[in-house]
Amino acid sequence: VDVIELARNSPVPLGDQLVDGLAAQIEGRRLAEGTRLPSVRQLAKQLGVGVFTVVGAYDRLVARGLIEARQGSGFFVAARANLPAPVAIEQAGPPDTVLGLAQQALEVDRVTVPAGSGFLPPAWLAEAVTPTVMARVAKHAHSLFRPTPPQGEPGLRELLADRLRLKGINAASGQILITFGASQAFDLLARALLVPGDAVLVEDPGYFVLFAQLARHGLRLLPVPRQADGPDLEAVETLCRLHRPRLMFTQTLLHNPTGSNTSPAKCHRLLGLAEKHGLLIVEDDVYGDFAPDQALRLAQIDEFEHVIHVGGFSKALGPGLRVGFVAAAPAIIRQLMEQKILSVLSGALLPELVVAEVLRSGRFRRHAEQLRRRLAKTHGMARKALAAAGVMFDEQAGAGLFLWGRVPEGIDVGVLVRTAREHGILLAAGRLFSPAGGCQTHLRFNVVHATDPALSAFLRPRLAA
Amino acid sequence: VDVIELARNSPVPLGDQLVDGLAAQIEGRRLAEGTRLPSVRQLAKQLGVGVFTVVGAYDRLVARGLIEARQGSGFFVAARANLPAPVAIEQAGPPDTVLGLAQQALEVDRVTVPAGSGFLPPAWLAEAVTPTVMARVAKHAHSLFRPTPPQGEPGLRELLADRLRLKGINAASGQILITFGASQAFDLLARALLVPGDAVLVEDPGYFVLFAQLARHGLRLLPVPRQADGPDLEAVETLCRLHRPRLMFTQTLLHNPTGSNTSPAKCHRLLGLAEKHGLLIVEDDVYGDFAPDQALRLAQIDEFEHVIHVGGFSKALGPGLRVGFVAAAPAIIRQLMEQKILSVLSGALLPELVVAEVLRSGRFRRHAEQLRRRLAKTHGMARKALAAAGVMFDEQAGAGLFLWGRVPEGIDVGVLVRTAREHGILLAAGRLFSPAGGCQTHLRFNVVHATDPALSAFLRPRLAA
Repeated sequence: VDVIELARNSPVPLGDQLVDGLAAQIEGRRLAEGTRLPSVRQLAKQLGVGVFTVVGAYDRLVARGLIEARQGSGFFVAARANLPAPVAIEQAGPPDTVLGLAQQALEVDRVTVPAGSGFLPPAWLAEAVTPTVMARVAKHAHSLFRPTPPQGEPGLRELLADRLRLKGINAASGQILITFGASQAFDLLARALLVPGDAVLVEDPGYFVLFAQLARHGLRLLPVPRQADGPDLEAVETLCRLHRPRLMFTQTLLHNPTGSNTSPAKCHRLLGLAEKHGLLIVEDDVYGDFAPDQALRLAQIDEFEHVIHVGGFSKALGPGLRVGFVAAAPAIIRQLMEQKILSVLSGALLPELVVAEVLRSGRFRRHAEQLRRRLAKTHGMARKALAAAGVMFDEQAGAGLFLWGRVPEGIDVGVLVRTAREHGILLAAGRLFSPAGGCQTHLRFNVVHATDPALSAFLRPRLAA
Repeated sequence: VDVIELARNSPVPLGDQLVDGLAAQIEGRRLAEGTRLPSVRQLAKQLGVGVFTVVGAYDRLVARGLIEARQGSGFFVAARANLPAPVAIEQAGPPDTVLGLAQQALEVDRVTVPAGSGFLPPAWLAEAVTPTVMARVAKHAHSLFRPTPPQGEPGLRELLADRLRLKGINAASGQILITFGASQAFDLLARALLVPGDAVLVEDPGYFVLFAQLARHGLRLLPVPRQADGPDLEAVETLCRLHRPRLMFTQTLLHNPTGSNTSPAKCHRLLGLAEKHGLLIVEDDVYGDFAPDQALRLAQIDEFEHVIHVGGFSKALGPGLRVGFVAAAPAIIRQLMEQKILSVLSGALLPELVVAEVLRSGRFRRHAEQLRRRLAKTHGMARKALAAAGVMFDEQAGAGLFLWGRVPEGIDVGVLVRTAREHGILLAAGRLFSPAGGCQTHLRFNVVHATDPALSAFLRPRLAA
């Protein structure tokens, strides 16, 4: 056994350090198969730790199959044959593809500057889920893993109904279904309400993963140009007449990627078109917590006649929670819940309890307000930094998480994005956001990471050229 | 404001009690819209609590939209119009349907005796996820909600590879994909590897939710009779020749609902058929932690040529975790991961960290052994109690979570199951488990709940009649 250095001031318990140290020697094949390990007493004395620390560590190595106990004669390194041949972890696709960008935005450890990500960094989110919140949840450890009702924890649904009410949206808790993020909400909607070959309206530009989700279901995507004040309603009307789409996906507030809001007048007219053409509208409000509570949403004026409202906590609390929700007419919630049972059985209780605790504590609203203020401040700095690096902007103001910029004509954005990745920088290519194949010179920037000097240093020479 | 009784010895903080008490009065409409609440000082004095407790409580009621602060004049009950009209929470379907049984097994609060459930009660599971485990996880609160890599936490995948190795299954962590339970694994498999109209082999009897999942994907289910030593291989051969199915779903160990194991000889011959007919076999090992680690599994001898191995922690740690996994050839894992991104984006970090911590602590293996012993003991008692109540058994021995029994011919099991539900007893009708429409007089019993005297009292007179 090589010398194991134990760091006595580390927050990592000594037992964990011992397990990790021995496991590394065995998995790295520095300890031969069949080697006899020091006795518990020997090793404890040698390392200056308690006997129980070594007993526990050996126990855990046995449990992991790395060593074995032989009756009466001690512990031995287990047979090599049991160690799997190394298989490389699957690499992500190129960052200028839908799946490559989606995967790399989630594998943040591999990226230095996630400027193409759609998430806030953990440092911005930590204040909402405090150790106190976690401790309160953990107190119920004995029942943390009981079955989760497939519609979602009743207490969380009550609190979500309260939260929606603050936005002027009148939904009872029975009209709410909890999902694994907004992504699962879109998936369930496609599976429950549509059949392959159906036409759906989507915004161009719009959320790129949604397009791939819908295409995978065999749906026909009909792009509706997104204007500064919302979707192009003439296009909506024409497409409705020609193709009789059943669903339209739209973001009323802080549209991804442009950051624009649909005007109240357009909201009203869009609902009129929905009524006229029997169109259901999926209002994707995942960025809604970055907008003022009193901003107008379709669900507020429609009251679930034509609107299905989707929200979630990936943006304001963190994407690793996977807590989203749908608020809709009860008959639709019923269909979505059945589809949920047939795809994941039910939700994960622990994240649902964490979100409930954050909402119950009353701190979520303050947290969202603070994020709004901080994002507003960052927006100006990000725009300035990007403009200085050669990025151009067509829209005036800006709010929310994103800036939607352009690079000079003639620059191959695919090459730019792949080169950036080699420098540890993740960029989001604009064309992924355009189902009609436009936006070839656009990029979407996460404002928090857009001020990173490494990004400017990468972009400036390449955009000047 | 009605008198609010605060329980000073309760573990529920006084502030929470105050919020709940006031919210109940407002939502129950015992406090009229516009009513002025006592000032903070008044209420604090009246209740004998600190001023900060009342400030915090009012703050949280404002955050929930139940009261509003008016500049300079105090707190008032918010407008009634904002309260949603009550909409009943969606009721579950009848318990003798697939979705009704699945939903009611997850909504345990509504059932007194969940004898038809496929889960262990929380009391059996609490020792594995101790407050210490939770505290260790919670310590990392600042990064608990960072994005989860879509393939699953690398640390958890390493530990799962270790765990599989103990079962003689040689998988590298790169060959493992984390899913929201085995249910999502089946869903992703159907979506990634099959197209509507494809034929798949399933066991009869077998897991009823799987059948509904596959049927919803438009797949053709070909039932293979399950025998005492595994699937009927002549049926497999014939069906392969006639229908060229691409996939077969089977449970090698502790088959649901019969509890039988596939013999090593049949494992070998089944893999031969897979080779001959180009059949992929999905080995569903969700009950595998209730079987000895050294029991033979298909994945052990096949090494991911023809086998896709599915496991999870819903049975041994709790269904609310939603942590399952697939181990398979890297090319299949890649396809499943893409499908996962396009349906839920990624997994939930917190449950993955909890499972990793339980595995890392080394206590999981001991916990599983203890569950095995306890189940073995319960089995005998359950069988005796059910037999005394008039249930008949065709198989001799028994292990695992279930007993597969019969009631006398002539009894309408649908009526029996619906009547039981009215008595607070959830039963699982055998015909749901038979895709070929058999098993009309069978019931599947959860052995833990089968000894409940209320079940015997319900069954005895009805089965004697």
